[in-house]
Amino acid sequence: MKLARYLTILEWGRGYGGVTLTNDLVAAAIVTIMLIPQSLAYAMLAGLPPEIGLYASILPIIAYALFGTSRALAVGPVAVISLMTLTAASAVAAPGSAEFIAATLVLALLSGLILIVMGVLRLGFLANLLSHPVVSGFITASGIIIATSQLKSLLGIKASGEALPELVTTLIENAKDTNPYTLAIGVIATGFLFWVRKGLKPMLVGFGLAARPADLVAKAGPIVAVALSILAVIAFDLEAKGVKVVGDIPQSLPPFTVPLFDAELWQRLAVPALLLSIIGFVESVSVAQTLAAKKRQRIVPDQELIGLGAANVAAAFSGGYPVTGGFARSVVNFDAGAETPAAGAFTAVGILLAALFLTPLLASLPIATLAGTIIVAVLSLVDFKTPRAIWHYSKADFAAMAATIAVTLLIGVEPGVMAGVGLSLALFLWRASRPHAAIVGRVPETEHFRNVKRHKVFTDPRILTIRIDESLTYLNARWLEEFVLEEIAAHPKLKHLILMASAVNAIDASALESIEAINHRMADAGVCLHLSEVKGPVMDALERAHFLHELTGRVWLSQNEAFEAVLEIANREEETQTPTDLWMARGLI
Amino acid sequence: MKLARYLTILEWGRGYGGVTLTNDLVAAAIVTIMLIPQSLAYAMLAGLPPEIGLYASILPIIAYALFGTSRALAVGPVAVISLMTLTAASAVAAPGSAEFIAATLVLALLSGLILIVMGVLRLGFLANLLSHPVVSGFITASGIIIATSQLKSLLGIKASGEALPELVTTLIENAKDTNPYTLAIGVIATGFLFWVRKGLKPMLVGFGLAARPADLVAKAGPIVAVALSILAVIAFDLEAKGVKVVGDIPQSLPPFTVPLFDAELWQRLAVPALLLSIIGFVESVSVAQTLAAKKRQRIVPDQELIGLGAANVAAAFSGGYPVTGGFARSVVNFDAGAETPAAGAFTAVGILLAALFLTPLLASLPIATLAGTIIVAVLSLVDFKTPRAIWHYSKADFAAMAATIAVTLLIGVEPGVMAGVGLSLALFLWRASRPHAAIVGRVPETEHFRNVKRHKVFTDPRILTIRIDESLTYLNARWLEEFVLEEIAAHPKLKHLILMASAVNAIDASALESIEAINHRMADAGVCLHLSEVKGPVMDALERAHFLHELTGRVWLSQNEAFEAVLEIANREEETQTPTDLWMARGLI
Repeated sequence: MKLARYLTILEWGRGYGGVTLTNDLVAAAIVTIMLIPQSLAYAMLAGLPPEIGLYASILPIIAYALFGTSRALAVGPVAVISLMTLTAASAVAAPGSAEFIAATLVLALLSGLILIVMGVLRLGFLANLLSHPVVSGFITASGIIIATSQLKSLLGIKASGEALPELVTTLIENAKDTNPYTLAIGVIATGFLFWVRKGLKPMLVGFGLAARPADLVAKAGPIVAVALSILAVIAFDLEAKGVKVVGDIPQSLPPFTVPLFDAELWQRLAVPALLLSIIGFVESVSVAQTLAAKKRQRIVPDQELIGLGAANVAAAFSGGYPVTGGFARSVVNFDAGAETPAAGAFTAVGILLAALFLTPLLASLPIATLAGTIIVAVLSLVDFKTPRAIWHYSKADFAAMAATIAVTLLIGVEPGVMAGVGLSLALFLWRASRPHAAIVGRVPETEHFRNVKRHKVFTDPRILTIRIDESLTYLNARWLEEFVLEEIAAHPKLKHLILMASAVNAIDASALESIEAINHRMADAGVCLHLSEVKGPVMDALERAHFLHELTGRVWLSQNEAFEAVLEIANREEETQTPTDLWMARGLI
Repeated sequence: MKLARYLTILEWGRGYGGVTLTNDLVAAAIVTIMLIPQSLAYAMLAGLPPEIGLYASILPIIAYALFGTSRALAVGPVAVISLMTLTAASAVAAPGSAEFIAATLVLALLSGLILIVMGVLRLGFLANLLSHPVVSGFITASGIIIATSQLKSLLGIKASGEALPELVTTLIENAKDTNPYTLAIGVIATGFLFWVRKGLKPMLVGFGLAARPADLVAKAGPIVAVALSILAVIAFDLEAKGVKVVGDIPQSLPPFTVPLFDAELWQRLAVPALLLSIIGFVESVSVAQTLAAKKRQRIVPDQELIGLGAANVAAAFSGGYPVTGGFARSVVNFDAGAETPAAGAFTAVGILLAALFLTPLLASLPIATLAGTIIVAVLSLVDFKTPRAIWHYSKADFAAMAATIAVTLLIGVEPGVMAGVGLSLALFLWRASRPHAAIVGRVPETEHFRNVKRHKVFTDPRILTIRIDESLTYLNARWLEEFVLEEIAAHPKLKHLILMASAVNAIDASALESIEAINHRMADAGVCLHLSEVKGPVMDALERAHFLHELTGRVWLSQNEAFEAVLEIANREEETQTPTDLWMARGLI
């Protein structure tokens, strides 16, 4: 049972057979047809030879099937991770070179190890640092960069750069070299693929096909574009007219590769690998959760880390490059009826057969067609509705999103992610450093205490009650000191301060230090500190710290009890005068 | 008035005269006597010529007096900042070299600019990242390193290293070269200074002196040690016997210096300058707040940033090195009766006179005496009580403290601070990612709802109420999704889920996205989502996001109202059967 937690195949493998097998086989066939052009295209986007895209779609899928918790997730090369791989590996070698390919293997291995370590140490919560607006902004910006970068293949020209400014400049500079045949193929292929995506399904439905099969046929559109453009290249001898093609692809099993163990290279790729891993994980888990919820299945995020980590390690040792769970292919897999990860394993076999037998057919495939495939795929990632909605909902969230989009577009993908994460965290810490708190008074003829600014309530000039609405931590401890001391300075008649702690779930060591300081400073000023509605665990902690012996006032069970008792003490204090009497009146000596 | 916020002299300068002037002058005289040996010693600790310690105690004090908000804070060289300066500048040049001195000027300027920018942008909250246990651990570890490093001067040998392992190794290796005369002076001076600190005051009080003057006389102890050891060196011609002395100190006004504007140097010193600035700020503000509270004065932390920043900029342009508010000298200043920052200005004049006229007398001052001054001063920073108290109070806080101490001692000061800040933040984020929440039921015959695990409460299998005890943010949004979906999976009879939001002060865009996902996924499962006790600002935000139109259930003012109404709906649902009827029973269509 314990083993089954890590090796999930032991769970779904029991009782596998018949109907499930058929469903999985059908789904695998459809996904395989979709994956062949996509794998080639994404490898090209990552600056790698096309066959590497196929290799990255074989063993990683099987590794995920063994360890992952999603039953429908399809793992392999995806657009954003391919772009991040290109960026990271370009920093250490020229795209396409042997060193570049070696760097992508190291990236896959590092990424796999990072994910596995995070999974084993249950560090999945670190992915929370990527807020929804940051991820959404990053994906949109990456989509724009990818689509722009593919224009060069569509025009048959050269362009370079990881961010928009250089990309656009080099595209404009080289636009004069546009090859008309390449452009024609590219535009036709892209147009066809857009139509397949938007118009084919309604047409098929119009012809009487049911919605689901119509949808699945439409997903096979790219393979048609591939086939037609190969035929066009051969028929009109376009290669001689300057149309660039994929060229010879080796017919081979995935090679066994061993990533370089070079300390300096590992160091330089560590941060990119971390970013790439977390982005890949966040995207993959969100796809997996959406699909699992539809069938009331459960995703275990920490185990997903291990599954994706295993997939990347497998990629590193089988001539692949970094992979993650892809949105489009997973949805197709799910819609095609995949029931278990075995569907993924069958897909792997399909791609393996393609790598062994179909590659000669692909030699004349124009690169412009692959560029079209990429453009159509990534434009669906570009989302302008979410920024508008977030702008209306929260300006802080919008700021984090806008920073992510702007930095990603203008500087690059890694600075973009880091800017978004950094700004979100800074805004969060800023807000955490000034928690909600209110001065409260008693609602007449009730036992309820409400904010004096919003309600007509009863207060007494000698007593001040501050309701603290959040846990007290080192981030807001200094704020508490300042707030309390300012309130005391502003209320010259004050004799008793009650901190109403009904919403305080925890007090850390820094905040305890601050409360002790407040207690001492107030004692100097002749003001007594009381606590009310302290929660059980907080009370235990305060007792452990011996704070309750130092407290000048008392801890009261309810705020109403505190207010009534302290009011009585204050009245008795008015009657007595000497300092000792004062403290006796308080019942404290 | 607006100007007075930044230039605080305009506030305390009004009505200055008579008694205040006398008090300030007395305090200045006492602090000056204390500061002369200390300034020389700390400059030496920082790897700088001794006169630089004097220069750092002149203009920076005046700059702080103009802009700072504390009336008693005494600014100048301090032990921990001197150690951090040594560490940072050693990374770019050999201690004592011209390049090293240039680097310390750049450090002071960078530190000043960082503090001023933080003050103007009101980024003082970033100092919150240094929790109390981390600062306390860092100070203790720094004290141990400083004391250990001074043993070399006490023995008259060489030693090197920024952390304990190298320091101790080199001390042991070179111990055979110990100079007996140096050791004698060092041990006697250190012993004398310890006695002055612990034994002199009680003795003076025994002789009939009042406590306060006895305390102040005891503070002048170091100057006596300085004078006696100079006499000993001259009388016994110890310099010829290998006792190292301070040597010729130029008689000069602070020189006008212009820090190097070298982009690469600035880049390399930026992070050390940031750490040094924040450590200095945190320490200084805590001293200033403690002293201000005793006289019911107010410290404005963001303005303190500007005051300390101005002091460091002044240090950079007057041949100094990084400074901050010192604990010991500020307490002496306060106890000696300083009433306004003018006391600081008078101290500056005192040190200026010392730099001009007293330096020739100091040529024969043995370095071992200065080392003794430093050792006695820093050992008071070493605190083993706090770690024990924190261990009992909170294991997480103790972990952050222990990591800070261990990394500082074993690796160095900068990694030490960063380890502490990083671990505190990681632990905070980990806790923030799994907020407090409880399943609640109604306490019989009341309107109160309490945790089902702790109280005997009434619940219904068709209705589940989850009380969320914290604001919903991107850090805990994924946790909320997982928690709710697991609870739904665990309660097969469930028809209605109520999220009781009485402690939710805010919902950010990521958490809203999660609640929307929960709402949709629950609708698929035929479970209705309700909210209760939603606070005003949260309600406004949910309305702005149009979420309330999508919500399958309703928002109820109070939890009791929600529970009763939903119970009634659930009862009506039992009587009807078809899905449409179900939704009608819920009053939702």
